[in-house]
Amino acid sequence: MSETGRRVSVEDLATFITRALEAAGLGSEDACKVGKLMALADTIGGDAHGVFRLPQYVSRLKAGGYNSKANIAVVNERAATAVLDGDNAMGHLVMSRAAEIAIKKARTTGIAWVGARHSNHAGPASIYARMPLEYNMIGVYVAVGSANHLPPWGGTEMLLSTNPIAIAVPAFERPPIVLDMATTVAAYGKVKTHAQRGEPMPEGWMIDREGKPLTDASRSNEGFLLPIGGPKGYGLSLMFGILAGTLNGAAFGRDVVDFNADDTTETNTGHFIVALNIDAFCDVGEFKKSIDSVWEEMKSSPLLPGYEEIRLPGERSHRVELDRRSNGIPIHAALDVALAKVASELGVEPL
Amino acid sequence: MSETGRRVSVEDLATFITRALEAAGLGSEDACKVGKLMALADTIGGDAHGVFRLPQYVSRLKAGGYNSKANIAVVNERAATAVLDGDNAMGHLVMSRAAEIAIKKARTTGIAWVGARHSNHAGPASIYARMPLEYNMIGVYVAVGSANHLPPWGGTEMLLSTNPIAIAVPAFERPPIVLDMATTVAAYGKVKTHAQRGEPMPEGWMIDREGKPLTDASRSNEGFLLPIGGPKGYGLSLMFGILAGTLNGAAFGRDVVDFNADDTTETNTGHFIVALNIDAFCDVGEFKKSIDSVWEEMKSSPLLPGYEEIRLPGERSHRVELDRRSNGIPIHAALDVALAKVASELGVEPL
Repeated sequence: MSETGRRVSVEDLATFITRALEAAGLGSEDACKVGKLMALADTIGGDAHGVFRLPQYVSRLKAGGYNSKANIAVVNERAATAVLDGDNAMGHLVMSRAAEIAIKKARTTGIAWVGARHSNHAGPASIYARMPLEYNMIGVYVAVGSANHLPPWGGTEMLLSTNPIAIAVPAFERPPIVLDMATTVAAYGKVKTHAQRGEPMPEGWMIDREGKPLTDASRSNEGFLLPIGGPKGYGLSLMFGILAGTLNGAAFGRDVVDFNADDTTETNTGHFIVALNIDAFCDVGEFKKSIDSVWEEMKSSPLLPGYEEIRLPGERSHRVELDRRSNGIPIHAALDVALAKVASELGVEPL
Repeated sequence: MSETGRRVSVEDLATFITRALEAAGLGSEDACKVGKLMALADTIGGDAHGVFRLPQYVSRLKAGGYNSKANIAVVNERAATAVLDGDNAMGHLVMSRAAEIAIKKARTTGIAWVGARHSNHAGPASIYARMPLEYNMIGVYVAVGSANHLPPWGGTEMLLSTNPIAIAVPAFERPPIVLDMATTVAAYGKVKTHAQRGEPMPEGWMIDREGKPLTDASRSNEGFLLPIGGPKGYGLSLMFGILAGTLNGAAFGRDVVDFNADDTTETNTGHFIVALNIDAFCDVGEFKKSIDSVWEEMKSSPLLPGYEEIRLPGERSHRVELDRRSNGIPIHAALDVALAKVASELGVEPL
């Protein structure tokens, strides 16, 4: 992500988002929770899923597309599972609740899987997968993406989304290993940031309806994203959609509402989170040290021509986080204009 | 997979494998269990992981590389988790036990995750992911591959394996949807069958140590497999290795023994299986009908130029299974010769 633009502190960003959401109708406690999670998204480099989404969230809040007085409730429960009905709350509220429940259950049962329906876009997958880490647990998070951007393999009707997965594993002295990936070559959020910044996309991200490469991000609605590994990425996207959507009674396939194009229709977004208690498998300290060893081992591989280093998943994000916590979060000029407009329309103090 | 070669019935194949394994030193009950699972692998089209592996398994049994009197035991247990120590048994025995435990636990807890260490190569991932289906559960299976075939992204030291995942979901009138995929563009088993048959590999499966395409399957030891989606497939392989290997105290990274090149060293293979009880989430009948709808919806997409149909994961395998249960399993000529040699060396009746 681009590091251009003025820098603002994590706290200033969180409080700006909070006051904007509150002015748009969200309750004060909820606005504060979402503000912190959105600022966290930017802090760890999830630029396409943090404050960048604020104008869209505010539009949806003002249009009544969210339930700002939602009653998030468990509707089905076993010792190690739960299904949450989000009552059309903002996704951040639903999935942080889901993570809390999963962590609590996994303390005794060893694992817990909590699914949600009637939720909404919740920001970057990794912020939820990371939540179990401080409890010495591994986190897994999967979501049905908030708009369909690819067809089944060999088709042309966009029935599938980027359906991302995040997996976070704690280390001892090293940062946690955190994979956060779309099942497509590029996440749609990246296409959106390229479009906003007027930057062309690399070949291989998207094709048009004839199967030809599409590189103009502003024309993204004329084509579709490509899954990783062709039919394999299609298979992953499909299975994640079933597990995060269908199994929870949430939208999947033709029922998915294009959250980017519609501010009022309830999205019925589905997600799930898994918390896996390391202590149920092995000694926690030994495990964390062995993850440090995985770091060392991967890093020690000789390099292919043209590469400067081996990276672990989450390593770039960790470096970005250290920089941004010290030096602030860069706000790209185009985003700055959009945020000033939101503040002005809501009558709140700008960022 | 090629359909050339004489056809043998599923039962004949299973009993042939059983008598070969028994003659090689495996107990009669265990030989029968493994024989059935290996024949099932061929029945569903997992040609690279069924009877094709028999000569290698027999060599390892005769060389003492397996514990033919293993005591497979639960070494750590919570309400919804277990860790099995396979005591160096054949992987089929360890992972069918793991699936039984997971299914039993998930009946009450809603989900169970059972990991294993000191196990071995267990055949195609999908046969374990399918086991929960008849109990109205979804199955997920992940394994550390039995030899390292790829470096971390940007490196040249082969520290990672194809680490496959399988996910199986039951439908109502349609066949189950069963994804079974390596995290590499090609599974190494496919490279082996290409080498045995003297067929060239497509570009994109492997590169050599300079990063150039490698298409001669007989030279596969001069290069490495490519992960799906570049760094994403690397990330998946790494995470699956940690979850199936490190978390269970099984081999991962430099500790992985090349099962294809070594008949005696204990492999300490790790895997895990998850059983997810649909009833803990929603009405089972409604869920299965909604999976039928997913089939219809994907199938109904218009096609890209050059494609004849949309396939669901597991659909090809289902067609192969119907054909092979009716008409027998084709035994490729080169494999037939190898199996006759095994039978002769063991002094058992040939296939």
